[in-house]
Amino acid sequence: MNDMVAEQEFVDLDAQLIAYRELVQPLLMEVLPSREPTKYLYGPVRQYLARPGKGLRPALCIATCRAFGGDERAVLPTAAALELLHNALLVHDDIEDESDYRRGQPTMHRSFGVPIALNIGDAMNALVLTLLMQNAERVGPSVSWRIVEEFNHLLVESLEGQAMELGWIRDNDCNVSEQDYLVMVLKKTCWYSFIHPCRLGALIAGEQDLGRFNRFGFLTGAAFQIQDDILNLVGRGKTYGKEIGGDLWEGKRTLILTHALSQAEGGERKRLEGILKKPRTGRMQREVDWMLDLLKETGSIDKARSAAQELAAAARLEFDAAYESAPEGADKNFLRELADYVVQRSM
Amino acid sequence: MNDMVAEQEFVDLDAQLIAYRELVQPLLMEVLPSREPTKYLYGPVRQYLARPGKGLRPALCIATCRAFGGDERAVLPTAAALELLHNALLVHDDIEDESDYRRGQPTMHRSFGVPIALNIGDAMNALVLTLLMQNAERVGPSVSWRIVEEFNHLLVESLEGQAMELGWIRDNDCNVSEQDYLVMVLKKTCWYSFIHPCRLGALIAGEQDLGRFNRFGFLTGAAFQIQDDILNLVGRGKTYGKEIGGDLWEGKRTLILTHALSQAEGGERKRLEGILKKPRTGRMQREVDWMLDLLKETGSIDKARSAAQELAAAARLEFDAAYESAPEGADKNFLRELADYVVQRSM
Repeated sequence: MNDMVAEQEFVDLDAQLIAYRELVQPLLMEVLPSREPTKYLYGPVRQYLARPGKGLRPALCIATCRAFGGDERAVLPTAAALELLHNALLVHDDIEDESDYRRGQPTMHRSFGVPIALNIGDAMNALVLTLLMQNAERVGPSVSWRIVEEFNHLLVESLEGQAMELGWIRDNDCNVSEQDYLVMVLKKTCWYSFIHPCRLGALIAGEQDLGRFNRFGFLTGAAFQIQDDILNLVGRGKTYGKEIGGDLWEGKRTLILTHALSQAEGGERKRLEGILKKPRTGRMQREVDWMLDLLKETGSIDKARSAAQELAAAARLEFDAAYESAPEGADKNFLRELADYVVQRSM
Repeated sequence: MNDMVAEQEFVDLDAQLIAYRELVQPLLMEVLPSREPTKYLYGPVRQYLARPGKGLRPALCIATCRAFGGDERAVLPTAAALELLHNALLVHDDIEDESDYRRGQPTMHRSFGVPIALNIGDAMNALVLTLLMQNAERVGPSVSWRIVEEFNHLLVESLEGQAMELGWIRDNDCNVSEQDYLVMVLKKTCWYSFIHPCRLGALIAGEQDLGRFNRFGFLTGAAFQIQDDILNLVGRGKTYGKEIGGDLWEGKRTLILTHALSQAEGGERKRLEGILKKPRTGRMQREVDWMLDLLKETGSIDKARSAAQELAAAARLEFDAAYESAPEGADKNFLRELADYVVQRSM
């Protein structure tokens, strides 16, 4: 019975996510110029944005705004800007990680080459500001300016987190701790994907205390990222949309890998460090398979599962504090369920 | 005698450029966070920004602002933001063009690899907005917002121009016309490097009609870009700071190459198209040498020289219209000499 309830809940949540996404999709299409150059700029962007993403960031932003009684129309450019920025970051991330698939289709640089894909990511990033320019007439100059400040912060944090992660791989740092990992995830993922979407929604609804969303956003975001790392290893490729095991090919310092590194000893540890030291193109399938076996043997995947569950449980507690003053309703319910959703999702 | 006067003039202009650059350099250093991550983010950015660039964009912006009686203090964050954005674009351009040297030193991706360099360029771009955030208290919310709009436009134009240029190379388009080239240069170079720096300086000085700088900026910028293309082929590597002949290795559709393509016939044209069709790594030194000889034989370099001179002369005429209402002074003189400077420079 409990299982049926849970399933029903997530069907509703998926449907709600789609509904939020449909609110911002027209703004995303409208902000794309219909002029030239289309072939290697606006055309590929249009196709990319039509791929089915979860739309978590605009959903968080719109739901939070409406939950606090804010005007849906006022929040849409900002929500759309979050989704566009996310996509811009994905295009660049996929170049940086040499990833082949995204949302079940070839990554931008696989289709168009690194130079054009890099430029496309830059242009998507520039159009984020074009969307935020629309705020002036919807929410006034003062709030518009604060929204730009929030974006500035989330972007700088995200790029700092990315620099940490890329640096660990480049230096083959095999002593990354759980604490290091969580700081990196806070920076790379949580600010732009969870904390600021909530803060921005509340800001546009007229709320003053934005700091109260920071813990909820961090905990949910960290749970989300760990689940992402798990799916990358044990997910189903078709559902997940990215290549399974990609993180191992890339040598990403996930919570799973850092745990395995802390567990492995002697020859095992030496072999793991040696494989990680090679560039992506130098690693062999049997080495990646061996790493995956090791992650299972050391219980690192199970450990990550527990960590994600614990973070999600803590997030649910923080939810009550962050959203206490918001009246009950569909948006608040959506937000309440989100922490569980992010650790139970399969895509 | 005339030569001596000209030489004296440019000595002064170089000194003035340095003086403008020194005004913005402290702001560039201050906006860089001193926190982690330093090794693969803020450290490399700090070193990169310390390399001696010309600082044309902040110079144009500050000179225009002061020429119209604007406050130097009010214009500095915007001028610094132009320089930072320029450097961010260079980091990404060098990845896109697979360039090895910039300002006499290895490009960012040669030093740190593509993933980290790409992320560094993104972070520099994000810090542009951090600088522009400083405007609120210096020039008030309304002008600050208009400055952001100007930046949004110059960035989108620049990335559209870049998409055009990269697309021509990818498709091996051998029918790019002089007109196509000029549209691309207007987009890729002129808006962000010449037109908007003048517009922004005037805006901050309280001027209303910003459109009057568009022709002056376009003509000066086109002359600048063509001179850049010439220096890339016949300049002295040490002075120029980039690899000589790099544009030929990249297959860039410069005015010079488009002219040669329009002149070459039969087997010559076929050979040229064939060499251009290869990826950069597939071209051989003797093929690049042959292309350079062809550009000389077809008079394409001389043709570009004349075009740059004509554009500079036209720019000088436009200068009088654009800056008519500004009183005479050192800043106005600097701006007046600039059109000649950009076509006579050797770096």
